[in-house]
Amino acid sequence: MKTLSLDLPAHHYDIHIGAGLLAQAELLAPHLSPEVLVVTNETIAPLYLARLEAALVKPDANRRIESVVLPDGEQHKHLRTLDQVFTRLLELNYSRRCTLLALGGGVIGDMTGFAAACYQRGVNYIQLPTTLLSQVDSSVGGKTGVNHALGKNMIGAFKQPELVLIDTDTLSTLPDREYAAGLAEVLKYGLIADAGFFDWLEQHWSDLLARRSDVVSEAIYRSCALKAEVVAEDETEQGRRAILNLGHTFGHAIETWTGYGAWLHGEAVATGLLMATDLSQRLGHVDVALVERVRTLLLQAELPVRSPTGMARDNYLQLMARDKKVESGVLRLVLLNTLGHAIVTSDFAVQALYETIDHFKS
Amino acid sequence: MKTLSLDLPAHHYDIHIGAGLLAQAELLAPHLSPEVLVVTNETIAPLYLARLEAALVKPDANRRIESVVLPDGEQHKHLRTLDQVFTRLLELNYSRRCTLLALGGGVIGDMTGFAAACYQRGVNYIQLPTTLLSQVDSSVGGKTGVNHALGKNMIGAFKQPELVLIDTDTLSTLPDREYAAGLAEVLKYGLIADAGFFDWLEQHWSDLLARRSDVVSEAIYRSCALKAEVVAEDETEQGRRAILNLGHTFGHAIETWTGYGAWLHGEAVATGLLMATDLSQRLGHVDVALVERVRTLLLQAELPVRSPTGMARDNYLQLMARDKKVESGVLRLVLLNTLGHAIVTSDFAVQALYETIDHFKS
Repeated sequence: MKTLSLDLPAHHYDIHIGAGLLAQAELLAPHLSPEVLVVTNETIAPLYLARLEAALVKPDANRRIESVVLPDGEQHKHLRTLDQVFTRLLELNYSRRCTLLALGGGVIGDMTGFAAACYQRGVNYIQLPTTLLSQVDSSVGGKTGVNHALGKNMIGAFKQPELVLIDTDTLSTLPDREYAAGLAEVLKYGLIADAGFFDWLEQHWSDLLARRSDVVSEAIYRSCALKAEVVAEDETEQGRRAILNLGHTFGHAIETWTGYGAWLHGEAVATGLLMATDLSQRLGHVDVALVERVRTLLLQAELPVRSPTGMARDNYLQLMARDKKVESGVLRLVLLNTLGHAIVTSDFAVQALYETIDHFKS
Repeated sequence: MKTLSLDLPAHHYDIHIGAGLLAQAELLAPHLSPEVLVVTNETIAPLYLARLEAALVKPDANRRIESVVLPDGEQHKHLRTLDQVFTRLLELNYSRRCTLLALGGGVIGDMTGFAAACYQRGVNYIQLPTTLLSQVDSSVGGKTGVNHALGKNMIGAFKQPELVLIDTDTLSTLPDREYAAGLAEVLKYGLIADAGFFDWLEQHWSDLLARRSDVVSEAIYRSCALKAEVVAEDETEQGRRAILNLGHTFGHAIETWTGYGAWLHGEAVATGLLMATDLSQRLGHVDVALVERVRTLLLQAELPVRSPTGMARDNYLQLMARDKKVESGVLRLVLLNTLGHAIVTSDFAVQALYETIDHFKS
């Protein structure tokens, strides 16, 4: 097991990474209250819920361990599904001292964290991410929320967990498509913050695709370490944290346009990363070779490298105008300054943006 | 105009109280961004929206001033109505630098504050309370949220406003029933924190009922000052702030049982205050004379002094078990230790609670 710490001005928590952690009661126990609700989904519940519940009950047989099983998928990440969690908590008469456990991927983590932020104006929660994407991204950093029909992640809160427990064994049941989607976010960290990590990923890409466990663990650890470093500097995204959104402005537009769930979040980010790298190249920041390196890795992972069929320039521009990084009507984008260094800027030729969008048309 | 300040560790804001403040552009201007959304309701919009919009546009004709008009009433304070605010914000393409203005009573203030807490994970908002109840209570202190079918204010956030502007002119259009409901909260401050204020209220009760403007302003000022003092000590209700909930555990049970909107919040609090005073007397903390003084004031204001018809002991106990002050299944109540001093305690004879509930049966 490896452990990282995230130190924020008002809060500190550990991120444990290792095999079989879900069954390790002693890691969870210090963070539990007498009222526990596991929030999970229909796919994950049959696989891991019983294992987790057995660990939860171990140190204290009097602890109330309940669960709520939500439908699976990004298309369910909205206020109505969230309300199911509140209903369950109230039916159980759970107090503001209860603890929520998010057992699942990013959708479960985002909704559980937001439910914890809002239930009785705030209760504790723990992240137990079961997908590669949530392990390297959404479970760390405290961004929580739900989608709105008019925009992704538009309703939410900054709410840090008490603990993140990454059990790498859960990746064994992850479908190939979702695993690949997670690799897109891993690649992002190399691009925005660590050229050496990007090189390492290229060297170990086939091992990663084969899910060689030591290589996968190392990739998760280095991704989380990079994320923790950025978040510790800027918890509520006043500045640098926005670099974590490389490719996401394009990606969110794709997700909203296709309808949530058609493309996986990581798939939309994959195409978005390539578009952001392409735009950075058109603006003269990086060379064509880097664009091709990114494209090659995405293709090897069978990730999409073109826009959804039929999505036009205007579709992008309209949806990108709703991005949370927009200020006073001006679109700001995360771009690469060089490999391993991202910037957030509104200082780019809009013509280059048009060219990138048009270039990726299917 | 009188001004109070609320100083919190991470935030400071002013509370201005006076006649005609809604039209004073110079008070609002320093706190506005280029994107403003006024959130109000069908009752208030025809009365005050145009006046406010005229003041908002004054210092900067380029500022975007938009509004959303919600249905009026506690029965609409839920997630679905909140979603109308998010939809409007997204249709307008408003950024995370926008400012929300809550123009209305406590329901509008609570929903607008919660929308501000959640939209893009947090934007600024300003309270412009137009009812006596919201002027002396909910507009100050940052408690925001919505109701759930299974419990009042169960979903929400602590989110402090940038400014509270209390225009006492707005009370001229307030129906008698709502005005009286506000007086119940005013009375609360005397009971929990200031015996001298309670005596002053008794002496000026008929002037208050006649809405003599100087007396009303003084009552609002002293109420807000007491609330600001308690909130500054304990922003997120870890301890002392809970005394502000005197009568509210009973009151919330009444509101939930009758269905939101049947009793006004202040009416339910009125009965709750009397029940809490009665229980404090049964436990030997205060004398019967105080119970009668409270009852007399409530009756003069034509506020309810009995439980809703048909509401039984079990109804109270079941609903009170969902109170946010419950810890590990133990009910804690706000009680009077003496006039002007409240405590939060689970140390009371449950038999006395039963007697109080039974005594107030209609």
